[in-house]
Amino acid sequence: MRKLLISTAAILAMAGAAIAPASAEPVRLKMASTYPSSLTQLGTLGKILEKNVNTASGGEIEIKFFEPGALVPALEVFDAIKNGSVDAGWSTPGYWQGKEPALALFAAVPFGPSAGEYGGWLLTGGGEDLMNEIYHKHNIHSLICGVIAPEASGWFREPVENLDQLKGKKMRFFGLGARVMQKLGVDTQLLAAADIYPALERGTIDATEFSQPAIDLNLGFYQVAKHYYFPGWHQQSTSFELMINKEKWDAMTEQQQALLTMACRANYALGMAEGEAIQGAALKELESKGVTLHRWPPEILAQYEAAWNEVAAELAAEDASFKKAWDSLQAYRSDYERWGELGYLK
Amino acid sequence: MRKLLISTAAILAMAGAAIAPASAEPVRLKMASTYPSSLTQLGTLGKILEKNVNTASGGEIEIKFFEPGALVPALEVFDAIKNGSVDAGWSTPGYWQGKEPALALFAAVPFGPSAGEYGGWLLTGGGEDLMNEIYHKHNIHSLICGVIAPEASGWFREPVENLDQLKGKKMRFFGLGARVMQKLGVDTQLLAAADIYPALERGTIDATEFSQPAIDLNLGFYQVAKHYYFPGWHQQSTSFELMINKEKWDAMTEQQQALLTMACRANYALGMAEGEAIQGAALKELESKGVTLHRWPPEILAQYEAAWNEVAAELAAEDASFKKAWDSLQAYRSDYERWGELGYLK
Repeated sequence: MRKLLISTAAILAMAGAAIAPASAEPVRLKMASTYPSSLTQLGTLGKILEKNVNTASGGEIEIKFFEPGALVPALEVFDAIKNGSVDAGWSTPGYWQGKEPALALFAAVPFGPSAGEYGGWLLTGGGEDLMNEIYHKHNIHSLICGVIAPEASGWFREPVENLDQLKGKKMRFFGLGARVMQKLGVDTQLLAAADIYPALERGTIDATEFSQPAIDLNLGFYQVAKHYYFPGWHQQSTSFELMINKEKWDAMTEQQQALLTMACRANYALGMAEGEAIQGAALKELESKGVTLHRWPPEILAQYEAAWNEVAAELAAEDASFKKAWDSLQAYRSDYERWGELGYLK
Repeated sequence: MRKLLISTAAILAMAGAAIAPASAEPVRLKMASTYPSSLTQLGTLGKILEKNVNTASGGEIEIKFFEPGALVPALEVFDAIKNGSVDAGWSTPGYWQGKEPALALFAAVPFGPSAGEYGGWLLTGGGEDLMNEIYHKHNIHSLICGVIAPEASGWFREPVENLDQLKGKKMRFFGLGARVMQKLGVDTQLLAAADIYPALERGTIDATEFSQPAIDLNLGFYQVAKHYYFPGWHQQSTSFELMINKEKWDAMTEQQQALLTMACRANYALGMAEGEAIQGAALKELESKGVTLHRWPPEILAQYEAAWNEVAAELAAEDASFKKAWDSLQAYRSDYERWGELGYLK
């Protein structure tokens, strides 16, 4: 029965292509999100994508955003798209570093580029193609589909005078930065957004990082931990993605692929712009709630960076895909460095 | 005869709208460019827009890029769109500061924001709407439709030890920065891209600024002037626009408007990304051709900034629209300042 359905669909598709390639069947994509739609930027950018694509395509493409858990649990989105049980996903490549460590490099890189420089590599410098070399092995095609401004470095109950103070502490931490914190003796855990505040309040964790001021503010961490550190050396920008089952992607017309690509590029600009625009007010509000804003002194940032360099070397030695992507990013950044120093006022 | 044609078109449009609003007539836009298509980024981003819109819309919108002069001379594009003899334009709002001084603030601001911070104001902080308050008075609707990385400060024949050295010199200069240079005693002229090299070679001008290293390289200024200064304090980012005759814009469906808006947001991301990616190699090539790269010392940048603050105050006093846009941008930047200092590694 199943075989028959597939054949019928295939025949119809072929017939459609032969008769009228320009008016292909509309594409319907059930998109499983790894972020709740209510989450500032992380979720809302996925909803913006849904709206923009549906409006601009005039029905040619129909994306439907599903909350985490509605189709599959958030962290099962990768497998569900790979096996075709879900069409598409709204996520960050950083969530899949357990599957492929290199994917983390397309999401957020410690001491890595901020959104402009990162975009140069991801969108026009071969980064997205390198990412898809990895995704294609898993029957997934992914489009870089948004970015946000830097994150903060984290929330602590007491001022942090030196990094020895953090040894043995329990801290929520994401991505490649978590490996750095582990190297510094921190006991890291990855908790989803909704689970962080209760864990912090109960003392299950001592400290946490999550995202930007405007996002962290809404999650209420300031009620428990009053010392908020900057800059977020671990995520100077964080990119998002529209993951699509590769067979579904390959079956799309040039028009449909172009429209999704354009929508994702637009989300990159919009995410960056909004992320820059909303932090100033959030910082003011946090201060009015008694939060102290700290900037890490240069010597502590240097310690974080030294630990990251060790982690990066280890990961490159362990995994060939990581090494390939890391080498590409390093070559790009080395080429960029002089420009970054000369071109900007500060 | 002409009147009859217009009436027939209007009747057809009304009939179309009444019968089938969802499948409106395809929109055809003749787009007059103020930049030749061959010009890196400044022209190529307009060609990318044309291709993306035409592909992604599947014929729903058809943009046709016309070289400067093909429909109207470059600097007559504004008037031609205003009176409806041309549908659309690919330009920068900075070209129209002679019509409306405030428009310059939506293109490039001396000591102003770079692309990320600027996008926060233009795309999500009310900047584009403020710009359209001005354009609508001229029967034009304009979409911010691209941005590039910082420009360089300019090409000089000899090292510049102090700004007194520049008094009485003839220099090609664009936009609000030109007013600053005038205040410093420089005799500025605005020459189009193709006219700069010959003027520099003949000695009609002593110095010039034009754009970014990757763009200036192609124009060959290094053959005459070997001292290249950074940063481009006058244009830390430069934005581009898709101008559309307002009646043409208002007659579009929600789908068509959404698609053009999305295409322009995508161009913002792409322009920024590409602009960051291509400067490193250009700097290397310029050095290999014997160019000396200089960075202005802080005390000279402070003198430029003081002169700009005087110019901005004068323009705000002269023109109410300028004052309104300037106040909005200043309030945004003041709100942003703390975040800019805290959030970034450097």
